[in-house]
Amino acid sequence: MKSYALIGTGALGGFYGGLLAKAGCDVHFLMRSDVEHVRQHGLRVDSVNGDFLLPNVKAYASVSEMPVCDYVIIALKSTQNTSLALLLPPLLHSDSHAIVLQNGLHVEAKTEEIVGKGRVLGGCCFLCSNKVGPGHIRHLDYGNILLGSYKGPDGNSPNVPDSVIHEIVNDFSKATIPIEATDNLQRSRWKKLMWNIPFNGLSVILNASTDAIMNHPASRQLAEQIMRDVRQAAIACGETIPEEHVAQLIEHTEHMVPYDSSMRLDFLAGRPMEIEAIFSNPIRASQAAGYAAPFIEVLQKQLLFLDRTTDSESCETS
Amino acid sequence: MKSYALIGTGALGGFYGGLLAKAGCDVHFLMRSDVEHVRQHGLRVDSVNGDFLLPNVKAYASVSEMPVCDYVIIALKSTQNTSLALLLPPLLHSDSHAIVLQNGLHVEAKTEEIVGKGRVLGGCCFLCSNKVGPGHIRHLDYGNILLGSYKGPDGNSPNVPDSVIHEIVNDFSKATIPIEATDNLQRSRWKKLMWNIPFNGLSVILNASTDAIMNHPASRQLAEQIMRDVRQAAIACGETIPEEHVAQLIEHTEHMVPYDSSMRLDFLAGRPMEIEAIFSNPIRASQAAGYAAPFIEVLQKQLLFLDRTTDSESCETS
Repeated sequence: MKSYALIGTGALGGFYGGLLAKAGCDVHFLMRSDVEHVRQHGLRVDSVNGDFLLPNVKAYASVSEMPVCDYVIIALKSTQNTSLALLLPPLLHSDSHAIVLQNGLHVEAKTEEIVGKGRVLGGCCFLCSNKVGPGHIRHLDYGNILLGSYKGPDGNSPNVPDSVIHEIVNDFSKATIPIEATDNLQRSRWKKLMWNIPFNGLSVILNASTDAIMNHPASRQLAEQIMRDVRQAAIACGETIPEEHVAQLIEHTEHMVPYDSSMRLDFLAGRPMEIEAIFSNPIRASQAAGYAAPFIEVLQKQLLFLDRTTDSESCETS
Repeated sequence: MKSYALIGTGALGGFYGGLLAKAGCDVHFLMRSDVEHVRQHGLRVDSVNGDFLLPNVKAYASVSEMPVCDYVIIALKSTQNTSLALLLPPLLHSDSHAIVLQNGLHVEAKTEEIVGKGRVLGGCCFLCSNKVGPGHIRHLDYGNILLGSYKGPDGNSPNVPDSVIHEIVNDFSKATIPIEATDNLQRSRWKKLMWNIPFNGLSVILNASTDAIMNHPASRQLAEQIMRDVRQAAIACGETIPEEHVAQLIEHTEHMVPYDSSMRLDFLAGRPMEIEAIFSNPIRASQAAGYAAPFIEVLQKQLLFLDRTTDSESCETS
């Protein structure tokens, strides 16, 4: 049986790690403040698919206490990726692979530097879940993962062996996590960005939930225009995304339950927003490929202004 | 002596009309709720150039009581331009001219329909003033006007005779209002929009004063990018604006006193914002001329969403 280290037991990591552990996988959870609570009371997941409690999870407060593992799942916010240089090395053996379950573009780059080329997978997660208390996750909707090899910042890294991908897909599937392998992770990332960029961005800038954005003709049209801008950026970067994907996303969003984007939750809670991963990296890639991506850039700059977790000095004058 | 009708005795109209009346011009003020207060206590202007009180101004509650005038100054917000069809006709004789002192592009169009081609002037006003109470204006800074013939929506209307422009410039100058004639009103309008579009828009969307926008590197850079977008739109519409104007505006804004844009004051007070005049008309003109103006359009759509004075139904869900 392969072993999993789970870095970041929050809304996403707690949910997926909980399901893997429930299915009998050997999962080692890195936690922060929750570790004592979970050791005493277990990890609790309230899910639309059924609630469960894991009374005995392997919970750690530090990577130095953890064993090396075959798979390291990175389920931190990408804003914490600078900490990976300290967190990852103690968990790796000579054949470990990393699975980066984060939003955005090139969020795997830091992990690849540490773990090595051809050893990193990325996962696009479509999940609505919240952490509602210490060691307590609430799963609201969805949960599927698109998993693929990370090909590196320049697209030249070797693929992760099929056998490895197959093994992960097997383990996750047994754990009832809907997972699919993709041979083009970057395209999947861009397709997800076509939703995340307009709705994460506008929900913070306009202080609005997805349904409020969809219900006003101006913001709905703007969301569509931003989607088209992201699609143009993806095309400039060599990824084919059919025009119809815009209409599909709009249609999909129309039928979503009223939902606060993760970026809006971060913003309202005073946490850093994933501006770098979701906005700045795509803009950089697009502009390097010759497309200006003006809509994405307006949102990025507005979010950087609104971000109160950095540049606090320059914001005091407002 | 020529007679002036002043439509809209607010921060701008009260200031300019007050100065004209103080200089001995025959000015007839249309007021709303302030008319009784002004009849009893006069019109008060506190100005950086010297305070004054006009105990006896010709104040009216309705255009039906007013005489026809040689010049009709339109100093309403452009959001009230639909009311001009009722307000203007009773004030016009066969040789009246109208002076539209409003922000934005083609704000003169409605007036031209009523007053006639070749009879409408537009003025770009650079003025910081507030209305602080009934019949009480506070002038903070600036005050100069660029005055020119309105050439119509298609640029084909005849010029207002030089003698008329000369007379107005003379009257205003005598009243110590810094005024200059321009032979290209549209270019002056676009140059002013290069400031108004970024700073009116961002101040509402980011809930920030001009100095806060200037003090954060992201919003400052965004303001510059928006200025360049407005310049490209102007160029598409055939107006030459030198590249250096961007740097000059940024430099100028750096040295401004912390200032709340008129649009932000309108927004905070729950009044309609001049989105149509300052954003939608320039976008329409630019796109008709073949330039998409993406930066302006993002701001426009965001402002339309934030505008709580219309579409109130669709906003209730937020």
